[in-house]
Amino acid sequence: MSLLVVGSLALDTIETPFGKAERTLGGSATFISVAASYFIRPVRLIGVVGGDFPQEDIELLKDKEIDLEGLQIKENEKTFHWHGKYSFDLNMRDSLVTELNVFANFDPIVPETFRKSSYVCLGNINPELQKKVLTQLDKPKFIVADTMNFWIESKYNELIDLLNFVDVLIINDSEARELSHEANLFRAAKKIQSYGPHTLIIKKGEHGALLFHENELFIAPAYPLEAIYDPTGAGDSFAGGFIGYLSKTEDTSYENMKRAVIFGSTIASFSVEKFSLERIKDLTPLEIKDRFNDFKRFADLSSI
Amino acid sequence: MSLLVVGSLALDTIETPFGKAERTLGGSATFISVAASYFIRPVRLIGVVGGDFPQEDIELLKDKEIDLEGLQIKENEKTFHWHGKYSFDLNMRDSLVTELNVFANFDPIVPETFRKSSYVCLGNINPELQKKVLTQLDKPKFIVADTMNFWIESKYNELIDLLNFVDVLIINDSEARELSHEANLFRAAKKIQSYGPHTLIIKKGEHGALLFHENELFIAPAYPLEAIYDPTGAGDSFAGGFIGYLSKTEDTSYENMKRAVIFGSTIASFSVEKFSLERIKDLTPLEIKDRFNDFKRFADLSSI
Repeated sequence: MSLLVVGSLALDTIETPFGKAERTLGGSATFISVAASYFIRPVRLIGVVGGDFPQEDIELLKDKEIDLEGLQIKENEKTFHWHGKYSFDLNMRDSLVTELNVFANFDPIVPETFRKSSYVCLGNINPELQKKVLTQLDKPKFIVADTMNFWIESKYNELIDLLNFVDVLIINDSEARELSHEANLFRAAKKIQSYGPHTLIIKKGEHGALLFHENELFIAPAYPLEAIYDPTGAGDSFAGGFIGYLSKTEDTSYENMKRAVIFGSTIASFSVEKFSLERIKDLTPLEIKDRFNDFKRFADLSSI
Repeated sequence: MSLLVVGSLALDTIETPFGKAERTLGGSATFISVAASYFIRPVRLIGVVGGDFPQEDIELLKDKEIDLEGLQIKENEKTFHWHGKYSFDLNMRDSLVTELNVFANFDPIVPETFRKSSYVCLGNINPELQKKVLTQLDKPKFIVADTMNFWIESKYNELIDLLNFVDVLIINDSEARELSHEANLFRAAKKIQSYGPHTLIIKKGEHGALLFHENELFIAPAYPLEAIYDPTGAGDSFAGGFIGYLSKTEDTSYENMKRAVIFGSTIASFSVEKFSLERIKDLTPLEIKDRFNDFKRFADLSSI
């Protein structure tokens, strides 16, 4: 069992109704790999940062036994920076600043020692770069990909090409509608599955997730959080928990994917409780197990 | 077992992205009582219509064995009329016209034969009128109430007073936030429960429902509809299925309320498939049972 993750590492400035965090650790690969590290170690990371990337963030990743051999450090450049501001109810966000910096010319190189990776998580970056990582791998067994509306709009053909190689696509509801040109999520899922992925996970934020697998459907509940502080990274934490659990168990059956969805939701529910990775950087196995069981209990229909 | 329903009967003009229906049967009491009629008969209806209320709509209600002894017919006045228009994704609606007509001076009178009604559903009308119905009843066993943002804003004190007498309040997520002044639904529920109802159901539209009962929580799934034509009456259909099932089974335990929530969701999921009551006016027991089982199957966590 081996898991390779590619995506962004970022220094984010985040504004929510509850406060502001400046140049704090973020990025899709960061959240995915830290979330996955609770299930499988080491996680192999492919990404790029600038010389301004704090040593303490490097240490955080190393502490989670994330293998940084595939992390490029461009000493004379700056790390990807995103500045976002959330609405009162946290359901909308504006991107105030997006500085690609080192990401503008990112050329992902998979180290020789990473080429035989069975499980792969393609975090949200340009689909051409996601594809470029895939082409360097030696017969990966299971490929999960995330994307976003920006790539659906600007790299539609490249994304459709990538989907031929993907087992599980994880996107949110509005992205599913945009990618499929279908307003109804059920029809949207059918169409996206026809593009390649046998499985589609539609994230609905605070409303849970839908797992479409071939002709099966699983409606996963959302955890009714008492406090949401920062939604940034929730989707990536979900993806990391999902792929982390699958690669740990080496079981990609539908039943096990259902379990993985709940573990993904579990890590995501912690992620939003504090800014950045503050909450998920030091979870305990007991916390994870307890919340997983809460999900099962609150949504239990077996007695009815 | 006996169920009394009070609420509006309306002639609605509805515009959705899929078409327009003119002066079609609507109203909270109409949807609630027809939905409940699949579980218990007769349903006792309290309401008012004008001389323009079509005889065929009276026949529809009679066909469902709805007892119309409490229906006032004001021959020289007009029936309540609402004209609404839904947004593309059906999540927003504008009220273009609201003509109270007979509802402006509605004085609900509970017939002698209705006074001993064990189960009561107070559909969405002025909370003063809801209270007026309650005061005419002889020790009802179980009271369910619905309301809306309009009454929260214009009749806040009257609504808070009513809640002292209510067992179950059914509202949507934005109404729960507005009523409690809490953004988070978990805290909102706690606060609303402190106003009186031991149970709060928060409807989340296409995202399902939350059942808060004392310190318990049940997350009910939403049915992933292939086609939503008209959301009008979905919440009332939910309430009708919920209270109909409870009054049929005469069991208001938490476990049975969970079951009732799924039956409510089942009837609501049919309701939105066509305009007005077109879809729920002639459901079969088999259709209801099949969809109830779909809900259970799609959201089944018991194997994980």
